[in-house]
Amino acid sequence: MIGLESIRKLSRVSATKIVLLVVDGVGGLPFVRTGKTELETAHKPNLDSIASEAICGLVDTVGTGITPGSAPGHLSLFGYDPIRYDIGRGVLEAVGIDTKLVPGDVAARGNFCTVDGKGIITDRRAGRISTEENARICRILSGIKVKGCEVQVLPVKEHRFVLILRGEGLSPGLTATDPQQVGLSPLGAEALSSEAEKTAGMVNDFVAQAEEKLRGERFANMVLMRGFSSLPDIPTMPEIYKLKAAAIAVYPMYRGLARLAGMEVLPAGEDISGQMESLRRYYTDYDFFFIHFKKTDSRGEDGDFEAKVRAIEELDSALPALLDLRPEVLIVTGDHSTPAALSGHSWHPVPFMLRSRWCRPDKVSEFSEPACLAGGMGRFPATEIMPLAMANALKLDKFGA
Amino acid sequence: MIGLESIRKLSRVSATKIVLLVVDGVGGLPFVRTGKTELETAHKPNLDSIASEAICGLVDTVGTGITPGSAPGHLSLFGYDPIRYDIGRGVLEAVGIDTKLVPGDVAARGNFCTVDGKGIITDRRAGRISTEENARICRILSGIKVKGCEVQVLPVKEHRFVLILRGEGLSPGLTATDPQQVGLSPLGAEALSSEAEKTAGMVNDFVAQAEEKLRGERFANMVLMRGFSSLPDIPTMPEIYKLKAAAIAVYPMYRGLARLAGMEVLPAGEDISGQMESLRRYYTDYDFFFIHFKKTDSRGEDGDFEAKVRAIEELDSALPALLDLRPEVLIVTGDHSTPAALSGHSWHPVPFMLRSRWCRPDKVSEFSEPACLAGGMGRFPATEIMPLAMANALKLDKFGA
Repeated sequence: MIGLESIRKLSRVSATKIVLLVVDGVGGLPFVRTGKTELETAHKPNLDSIASEAICGLVDTVGTGITPGSAPGHLSLFGYDPIRYDIGRGVLEAVGIDTKLVPGDVAARGNFCTVDGKGIITDRRAGRISTEENARICRILSGIKVKGCEVQVLPVKEHRFVLILRGEGLSPGLTATDPQQVGLSPLGAEALSSEAEKTAGMVNDFVAQAEEKLRGERFANMVLMRGFSSLPDIPTMPEIYKLKAAAIAVYPMYRGLARLAGMEVLPAGEDISGQMESLRRYYTDYDFFFIHFKKTDSRGEDGDFEAKVRAIEELDSALPALLDLRPEVLIVTGDHSTPAALSGHSWHPVPFMLRSRWCRPDKVSEFSEPACLAGGMGRFPATEIMPLAMANALKLDKFGA
Repeated sequence: MIGLESIRKLSRVSATKIVLLVVDGVGGLPFVRTGKTELETAHKPNLDSIASEAICGLVDTVGTGITPGSAPGHLSLFGYDPIRYDIGRGVLEAVGIDTKLVPGDVAARGNFCTVDGKGIITDRRAGRISTEENARICRILSGIKVKGCEVQVLPVKEHRFVLILRGEGLSPGLTATDPQQVGLSPLGAEALSSEAEKTAGMVNDFVAQAEEKLRGERFANMVLMRGFSSLPDIPTMPEIYKLKAAAIAVYPMYRGLARLAGMEVLPAGEDISGQMESLRRYYTDYDFFFIHFKKTDSRGEDGDFEAKVRAIEELDSALPALLDLRPEVLIVTGDHSTPAALSGHSWHPVPFMLRSRWCRPDKVSEFSEPACLAGGMGRFPATEIMPLAMANALKLDKFGA
């Protein structure tokens, strides 16, 4: 496939707009009694009407048989090979709470845990303490000073937190302090190369001070660190595609991923109607919009087929506000499937459609898994979506003479 | 595509079973008078019934336009890129007679040939001597002693034999002694690097002693060696997929290939009913079974359309024994096509189907080339079969967070 460097050379600025609507976890599996998937079951006249004017297909965001997490699923939709651009766990955790990292920051995922009198781990998750207790402990640890860097300790959820070290000359090449099992002592962080030695010392200093401050705490009295990582060195969407790109997402994880790709983050309100309102307000200011709809994934994760059907219908009824703007290129797809039957993400390819004046529409007139299989794109990797979108927006020059 | 190293990280053990039924050479071409392929002509209610509950497609085991040999065809089905994992000719010849090689062995393919009084080759295949005559000569050559290694000389068929050198510090980096044409003398084996010099000397010693022992033989009086190779350094299926894998194959070549991939070889009896009996007996002991059905390929090679149709029907009628076991994942496909019209292997993609509770079935209800083209997998590379099988067996973790 053609690489990002080639796309960068071919891309050009134009007045057309691209809207990428990501319906999280939209792909499904047939309901046993009806043989129909969530999409086939939903009443969704707007989505079906787009399909009848679009070129359709089924996308694999990571690869055949691979169940994508949210990060690789979205990176792939933004045009990045998710195998090559593997984002570290610490960065993802920071991104997931919408924290802005700067290049050179080292982020790590932390667990609050419990240790006995001899320092042996007795519960790696401290009984999944409440998020409120987590926030209280994070405030205690925020007082820690480490020489040579600035320390941030941010609560995530239950026993999970993020540690961010900011300073000059830091390196994420460190081993975890989490031995990943109870009955052992926490490990010291070790540098994987000489350039990370200074950072290893800082992490071990932080952990020693944390142990001191948490001594005598009732629910969690120690920390375990892993997934040390820094912002990946990825070319941004404005660099590759010369797009002024914006994200309209309600959940912090997706705003964070969009920021990694170089998008600006716009207000999103609290639901899809708030997102549509934001799209209308900022429509003239950007030429690429990523809109993220979460509820399909959440209801799929719940294993609630009917609720996922209703989420699709809720999205459908919000679409006229988007359609009224007549974006030159409109894409609707998902980052992965989340069949209610599996109560979780799955490997199944995701329905896709792209509508534009130049899309060469196929015969598909329904946005669903079996219908899209017969579409003009067939089954294809999601990293091809952005080049296709750019082409349909007439934003890509000819390749070669 | 995602690599074996990534799959290894994602794979996990579970109680589900995967059965891979390889119908050798199953793909075909239309019979001139009816316009139907062997599969379309055969009466095969069981295969068609599986298709109607499965996700179907057409696989390329090596690549578009490439006619696969049995080795790359099978390696690809087992998940190995057949371009990268190229097995040497000597090893294949050894594997093909079910010989167990150990790491460090150097195997070579040998031809018995005839030379004239001046040592000039007059027939590179010694008039394709009988296999019995071959065996007799091999017994003569088995007496050869070479310093520093153990020598095995094993008959294959007609003029073909295998030479195996076993010892410390051997290297297969040698040139052939076979000049590949008559009218020339056999060449000396030359080392391609300094580490192979010792082995080159051993091979040349073996050849000199063979020449001596065969002097005066009536039908074959010299040997030609080529394809020096050692066991490839490939990760095994138990390592990659954490599967306890077994092969049930009647023919030695396929048992040998399965062994290369780390499968255990089970008794197979003499035909498909013996294979089904073995499957039933060992069903609880393994979680992956490779079952090889040969007759479709043999009858295709014969150019006998009707006989190939009957071979498909014979397989079909043996299937209930397999279906009764209700494997969680059942795959039926082939290693390549062998159209009777071509009397040999061909490049045409091979019908594929995978049945599982989670397969997202398509509308295909017939196991044939044109029907599978409309399947949910479309046309795809065979190396994606194992990740898909693992996913459907719920044996793969999510990729990324």
